[in-house]
This record gives sequence, structure tokens and C-alpha cells, in this order.
Amino acid sequence: MAPTSKDSISSSMEEKSKNGMATSKPRLLVGCNPLLLQMKTSIRGVMAELKAAANPAKSVISLGTGDLAIHSDYFGKRRAFGDAVAAASAHFDSYLPAFGLPSARRAVAEYITNVVRKCRISRSDPPLKVTESDVFLTVGATQALQTTLTVLASAGGNVLLPRPGFALYDSACKLAGVGCRYYDLLPSRRWEADPSQIRSLADANSLAIVVINPNNPTGAAFSSHHLCQIAEIARDLCIPIIADEVYGGMVFGGGTFVPMASFAHLAPVFTISSLSKRWMVPGWRLGWLVICDPQGILQRVREATEMIMNINPGPASVIQAAVPAILSDENEEFHANVVQLLESCVDTLFKGLKQIEALKCYSRPQGSIFVMVEIDTSRLLGIENDMDFAKQLMKEESVLVLPGFVLGCKNWVRLFFGLPNDLLMEACKRMTSFCQRRMV
Amino acid sequence: MAPTSKDSISSSMEEKSKNGMATSKPRLLVGCNPLLLQMKTSIRGVMAELKAAANPAKSVISLGTGDLAIHSDYFGKRRAFGDAVAAASAHFDSYLPAFGLPSARRAVAEYITNVVRKCRISRSDPPLKVTESDVFLTVGATQALQTTLTVLASAGGNVLLPRPGFALYDSACKLAGVGCRYYDLLPSRRWEADPSQIRSLADANSLAIVVINPNNPTGAAFSSHHLCQIAEIARDLCIPIIADEVYGGMVFGGGTFVPMASFAHLAPVFTISSLSKRWMVPGWRLGWLVICDPQGILQRVREATEMIMNINPGPASVIQAAVPAILSDENEEFHANVVQLLESCVDTLFKGLKQIEALKCYSRPQGSIFVMVEIDTSRLLGIENDMDFAKQLMKEESVLVLPGFVLGCKNWVRLFFGLPNDLLMEACKRMTSFCQRRMV
Repeated sequence: MAPTSKDSISSSMEEKSKNGMATSKPRLLVGCNPLLLQMKTSIRGVMAELKAAANPAKSVISLGTGDLAIHSDYFGKRRAFGDAVAAASAHFDSYLPAFGLPSARRAVAEYITNVVRKCRISRSDPPLKVTESDVFLTVGATQALQTTLTVLASAGGNVLLPRPGFALYDSACKLAGVGCRYYDLLPSRRWEADPSQIRSLADANSLAIVVINPNNPTGAAFSSHHLCQIAEIARDLCIPIIADEVYGGMVFGGGTFVPMASFAHLAPVFTISSLSKRWMVPGWRLGWLVICDPQGILQRVREATEMIMNINPGPASVIQAAVPAILSDENEEFHANVVQLLESCVDTLFKGLKQIEALKCYSRPQGSIFVMVEIDTSRLLGIENDMDFAKQLMKEESVLVLPGFVLGCKNWVRLFFGLPNDLLMEACKRMTSFCQRRMV
Repeated sequence: MAPTSKDSISSSMEEKSKNGMATSKPRLLVGCNPLLLQMKTSIRGVMAELKAAANPAKSVISLGTGDLAIHSDYFGKRRAFGDAVAAASAHFDSYLPAFGLPSARRAVAEYITNVVRKCRISRSDPPLKVTESDVFLTVGATQALQTTLTVLASAGGNVLLPRPGFALYDSACKLAGVGCRYYDLLPSRRWEADPSQIRSLADANSLAIVVINPNNPTGAAFSSHHLCQIAEIARDLCIPIIADEVYGGMVFGGGTFVPMASFAHLAPVFTISSLSKRWMVPGWRLGWLVICDPQGILQRVREATEMIMNINPGPASVIQAAVPAILSDENEEFHANVVQLLESCVDTLFKGLKQIEALKCYSRPQGSIFVMVEIDTSRLLGIENDMDFAKQLMKEESVLVLPGFVLGCKNWVRLFFGLPNDLLMEACKRMTSFCQRRMV
């Protein structure tokens, strides 16, 4: 029996938490899941560390987190969205069904069906029809991808992920107990992947291919041809595709957003998205997972998804109740205006970055709200790597950027460009002087 | 290489999902996490199955899910809560900090500190002071308990759980990869546990003791003495306590709710609760996890909790923003009125159940919103077990009850009693005729 006096217990507990073992008998480390210890630092953790380093004499300009709502004065705001939530707040107090409010699920199903129909690739394939029962409402896209990875997880399995990638996938894979294999997004190919590399990485234990399009963090918007290539690989491997389309519809230069579900006749697609970006309400945590499986291959996956959705908590009722109003909102002008403003943000940022010799941007973003920039550390005195760059930049200029190591890309940084023009120009000015002060 | 034509792929995928193996080469089962297959049916799953069986000629009376908001006309409703959310809906669109809105975390910290202070047990111990940094806002209590179990999980570890228990714990343990060991809540002891049984179940791999108080599903409200006994066991085992206090404050007969954190000086306590029950807004999915660790033993657990909170999505911003207004709401009358009405519900149900010989209720609920009732199947012709009872009752009388097998209690049912008196009386009437028709 363990000691009983308060002091000796307290010191025995401390001992365990310091050394991982009690001295008296073999014991587990109190409360430390070893999987959590293996995790890379999270984006939020790194951001918090950087924020604390800001120069108190300068106001912070954040090119860090991708949150358009912060600048809703600039990008515009649909008051109808908030009004729909306010209207629901007087009535929707009770538990909702585990997979989501039926009217909200139907609204998402119709939305996805329309998006796929709009950019229908092949006239010969039957049009995809998504129904209420294919849709699961989730706490942001984050819960959707965690759910999908948990459902697909099997011991010894691996998931094919893009690199640079979104750190959330690594941690979700680790917690679900599956391995990560990275295929490269190539700056020289406008950040598309090399299909033969994806094929070569896959083996009999591969569980799924993750595709993020439009892409965070690179700003790529994949061509229909490229998406088809990936779908053909998934078809050949007999595995589904996890399509993270959080930036769906946010494509520049008159390009079209092609949803992966357009190729669901080749391989089943888990379409993941949310209200966070296009509808500019990331704090509301309303996402969805849609199983696009026209051939009905994934019946057991569907059952497993239902099982886990029965256990997990869902998004807030007042937000779910507002979904039909938000998705049926016909104001295309609002969305078109946001995309147009984002394009001018890209212009501003590009002009600004061109002035900075130590920073290189391989290709102009075609979508999403991010761009990856390479740092030539050999030209910056005293800057050893991307974290160093981010920290010093924050310390001196109060400009927040995300160091690429969090995304698997050493000596790159990710920049969020969804800011008012004057702020972007000011950020570029500050980065210019920062680099000039160090120029070799 | 796998076959490439669409049809042969489709059938190969189907084959895999039916047999778990492709014929050509050894492969994983597409998309089926074996942990999910091991899970018991979820409460929501069983409820959905039962609901589908209702007698269309009779309106359903649900003694199933514990949702007081459904009957807010009867129990009263604080319009101020909805107003606070409505006010937030125009402003809180952006991402919030990973651990929650600071003002909301502070409000929870103050609330918990006050609850513990109010029923302070021992005047000799220093009063517990909970601060903002101890509080993590979660998507309902569900995410709080999933987070806690994930943080504590270690291979080969086990968690001590009450039986009858809340099925969510079993599934969360399974997903986190830890074992469950059940200590019995004893109907003959007003549903308190036998401390010596808890001690005998524990071993060097035990990670935590779960205590649900006031108790779902038994309706027990544990005495201060009993809670202290459990805290002493945790102290002796050098493990923390997970205190699920979702029904905190909902105690009848003038009794006092004793928060487990009152004994945090003996062993650290993870206090878990939410707005769902006491504030009657379960759909809003706003819960909290509070690390009550006055001795500062769990530093690494705290770091691991921060790591996982950095990864997981949180509750909706508009709800978080309303938390200070909701928790500081001074209308004690509202809460006192709900508890008083619930007491009269208990009276009605008890009177009704006494008329039914085949149903036995060992002790009157002292708290929460549930009671466990034993079914004497030997006295009911054609009823084999609790699921059978629940299904037939629904089919004939449209009265929804939760079969005890989901809670680890064969041939018991759990009844929710938070309904208007007339509905409860009608439910009792229907159960009486149902049993009389079968009486042996």
C-alpha cells in the first residue's frame, strides 16, 4: 500500500511526475499520455509563444492565424448570419440529434450537390446527389477530420498527407494511432504534387489520401486534371480521399474551385468544410463531414461514423439552427466581393515581397488566404531558421508570421494575406526594414 | 498493382469491406477502426432505435434523454441567457483562444471557488482558490471528459468507473486505449459505493477514479463523508479523481451539494461540468474542465491538457461570450424553483411507481434528474429483459425509457423525471396498464 500521510503522498506524486516512476513500485507516469508528448508543437502553441514576444512599442500586425472575421469592417459582413443566430437563441436550448439538425444537414447536402453540379467535369458521369443522410455536422472542420481519421484508423495503417501540411493532421493521426507519410507539394509546379510520388509512398496499409484544396498553407488551387490524377490513384489503391475544402470557393483570377467530390465516381470522398472561411465566422465552430460515396462502397465506414458521432458532442444548437439561412443566403455579391478584395491583397503583398531580397515567393496564390515564402537565411545576418525569423520579426516589428517548421517546411514562413491593404503595406514595410537591417 | 477498371475496383472494395481482406493481397479493412466495433451501443443509438418503435396512435412521453429545456414552459426559462447569446451573435465571429475566452474562464473559476467555499467542509484546510488558468472551456461536459481521459491515458492503464455508469465513459476509455474497472453503486446503501471494493479494484496501473455526483443514472447525492472516503483512496493510490458534476447544485430535500474539489487537498480533482443541466441549455454545448490541484502536483498533466486543447475545437464563440452573464446571474430563485419542481416530480413518479408491482425503486432520488428502477421480469409475461421491456413499452404505450444494459445494469431501466406533473402521471398510468396486461 502506498504511503498515507499527506506530505509523503505529495512528494511521492511529485516524484512520479518528475521521473515517470515511483521509487516504491513500478507505476505509470501520472497523467501523461505518451502520444501527447510525441506531438509537434501546435500552431496555437507557437502563435501564443510568438505573441508574447511582440515589441510593446508597435501595434501587432498578424499575418499568423487565418481569420477574416477580424477584418470584417474591410471585407464586409453579412448581418443576416448574426441575425439568424440571434433568432435561434430564444428557442434552440435543447439537445439536437447526434448527426445534426435535419434542416441544417439538408442545407449542407443541397449546397454540396450544387457546388459539384456547377463545375461538373464530365458530362458522361451521372451527377453526384448528396442527401441529408450523407451529412454529419461537426464542431468546425477540425472535428470532421478528427472523426474521419478515427473512423479510418487501424493499427499499422498510414495516411498520405501533403507537405507543407496542416499540423492538425499530424496530431490527429498520432492520436488515432496511425502513421503519416508525406507527399510533397512542389513550388516549381504551382504547388501541385507529383502523382508518381504519391503512388510510390502508398502501400497495402495506406488508409486514405488527404487533399487540401484550395490549399492551406501554399495558396494553390488544384486543376481539375490534377485532382483527377489523385482520384485515379485512390481508385487504384482502393482507398478513399479525405478532401479538406475549408477554402472551397475562394479561388482567384476567375479560376473555378473544383470539389473533389466531382471524382467520387472514381473513389469515395470524405468532403470536409465549415462556415469558418467562406462565411467568415470561424468562432462559431460549425463544420461538416460529407460522405460522397455514389457506389455505396463504404457502408461500414458510414456505420462507424454514426457510432462515433453518437458519442461525440456536436456544434451549438443556435448555430446549427442558423445554417439553412446562412447557406441559402443568395448574396453572391458578398462572396464575390470578398474574393475580389483578397485578390487585391495578393497584389499588395506580392509587390511588397518583391522588394525583399531575402524572401522568395515561388508562385502567386490562386486561392485560400495563405502564401508560403522561403527565407534565404544565408542573406540574413543572425537569423538561423524560420522560428528565429518569426521571433525576431515579432520582437522588433510586431509582425506575426507562422514559422514553417510547424508545417514541415524548415526556413519557410506562412503568411496570411486577408488584411486591409494599408495594414498589408505596413507589414511589408516592417519586414523590409527588418531584413535590410540584417542584409548580408 | 490493384486492378484499374471502375467495376473491378468497386467489387474489390466491396469485398474488402465484407471480408476484411482483399483477395489479391493482405490489406486492412477499409475504414473500420476496430475500437469502434468493440463499443457498446451508444445511448443515442438505443434511443433512436426505440423512438422508431413508438405506437403511432399515442403521443410519445420521453423518460429517456435528460433534457429539462424541452419543458422550459413548466420549469421556467431565464430569457437573460438567450439575450446574452443574441447580443454576442453580432460581434463574436472570430476564433477565440484555445482554452476559452478569458472572461468566461474567469467566470467559471469564480463560480467553482464560490461553490466550494459555500459548503466548505473542513475549516482547518485552506480554502480552495481556482483561477482562470485552471479552467478550460469545452464542447459540453462530454469533450471535457474525453480530454481528461485522453490526457491520462497510458498503455495498460485502467480507470475506476461507477456501475451503473454513464456509457460515454466506457467509449471514451476504449477510444483512449485504457481499460475500465467497475465499482458498484449499491441500491441498498442509497447508491453509495463500498470503499473497500474501490480499493480492491485498483492496482499500480490505475490512472484515476471517476465520481459522478449528483449521480446519473441513480439519483444519488453523495454525503460529504462518502466523498472524503473516496478522496482518501485516491490519495493513498496517488491518483487523481475525475469528478463529473454536471448535476451540481441539483440536490433535493434541503441537502447540500458537496463538490469533490472540497477534498482537492487530499488528491487532485478534475472537476467537469456544463451549462446543460442547472442552466437548462444542453443544446449550447458549453462545458468546462477545471484542474483543482492546490498542491501543484499535476504540472505535466496540465501541460498535456494544454497541448490537447490547442488541437481540439472549442465551444461556439457566441456561447462563450454569454458565460459571464449566465454564471453571474443572481436569480437564485430560478434555480431554487427548478429544484423544488423536480422534487415534486420525484413525488409524483414515486407514487406512480408504487402502484406497479413489477417495478422496484430502492431509494428515492436525492439529486440529478434520473432514477433507476428494477424490473422483475419473472412477473411480466413475455418480457425477457430490459431492452425487451423498453421496446414493448414504446410499441404499445409510446413511453420512452432507457434500458439499463447500456449502463451496465441488466433488467433495470433509467427514468428521467424532469417532466410536467400531468405528463409524469400519464406515463405512470401507461406503465401501469402495460405491466398489468402482462402480470403473472
